[in-house]
Amino acid sequence: MAYRVAPLEKLVEQFERLPGIGHKTAGRLAYHILSRSETEARAFADAIIEAKEKIHYCSCCQNLTDDDICPICKDTSKDRSVICVVEDPRDVMAFERTREYNGLYHVLHGAISPLDGIGPDNLRIKELMSRLAGDEVKEIIMATNPTVEGEATASYLSRLIRPMGLKVTRLAYGIPVGGDLEYADEITLSRALEGRNEIG
Amino acid sequence: MAYRVAPLEKLVEQFERLPGIGHKTAGRLAYHILSRSETEARAFADAIIEAKEKIHYCSCCQNLTDDDICPICKDTSKDRSVICVVEDPRDVMAFERTREYNGLYHVLHGAISPLDGIGPDNLRIKELMSRLAGDEVKEIIMATNPTVEGEATASYLSRLIRPMGLKVTRLAYGIPVGGDLEYADEITLSRALEGRNEIG
Repeated sequence: MAYRVAPLEKLVEQFERLPGIGHKTAGRLAYHILSRSETEARAFADAIIEAKEKIHYCSCCQNLTDDDICPICKDTSKDRSVICVVEDPRDVMAFERTREYNGLYHVLHGAISPLDGIGPDNLRIKELMSRLAGDEVKEIIMATNPTVEGEATASYLSRLIRPMGLKVTRLAYGIPVGGDLEYADEITLSRALEGRNEIG
Repeated sequence: MAYRVAPLEKLVEQFERLPGIGHKTAGRLAYHILSRSETEARAFADAIIEAKEKIHYCSCCQNLTDDDICPICKDTSKDRSVICVVEDPRDVMAFERTREYNGLYHVLHGAISPLDGIGPDNLRIKELMSRLAGDEVKEIIMATNPTVEGEATASYLSRLIRPMGLKVTRLAYGIPVGGDLEYADEITLSRALEGRNEIG
């Protein structure tokens, strides 16, 4: 099969490295790029380089930003006594979408996972501890994922933080709103039972 | 919701323009790019620009190539008396994978579709006709898609080419190998019936 176009194969390979993109989809995306105008292709390439160059971690909460301090940390209307600790910048977006939470965040950029070689030193824990040094913060909400790694990280951090006299809380477990009880797994269901609240 | 990072949003928007990529997936891909090294991000951007700059249409068959004439048209072992007419460069790849076809190709880059404003002049039909001018070509295989547009294109071209005394054929319709008769649609099944062959 002699038919190979090197620049095309290189582009397909690059698309294939993205999460969730297989060989067929990568091919389709690469052909799509070729079918666009030169200006559009260049705009795509520039967006990649610009995002990578300009975006870095907020020097306070470690979230992604193109500024020194991110807009949330800068926002004076936020409640500075609560810090919600999350694994990933996308989790911050998820909380912001609820429009319910008005405190600050701290992004760990991962969770403790010995199997993947990720220990506490690979996460932004030092930065979190230094934020707790003053007496502004009263509560830390552990909002790591409900996975083994997320749990391990939450309990590691709470052991570290509780001795400082701060309130450490964890997100509630339970059945997801709009879900179907029939399809809830047994662990979720028993947690929902444990955490049941009196009505009215 | 004050939290916006312009370069990140721009990158998400670019990913969203790709076919089959929604807002959520675009976000995931953009975050993935940010989590990679600067070198890797730059390699991706370069692959896009390089592919767009170097790849153009083969001056003979109109397939994508980074050369003047594509490797298939150059290949002297190919049977130059047959041209397989396809809509898309990916269709050429599909035929090459069969290892059964040893003729040449012609890529139309689309199909006649009045609703989308695509007429014969928007396709690479002039280029096909000029290839038929010599007396090397004996047969044209219409391998446009089995859709309304593909059919219309095939019949338009055959009306154009048949008067030149050339053999014009169309791919066989029928049930796909490995498919389940139960799930075959009625049109495919009636075409399979029409085109039935005697066994042995």
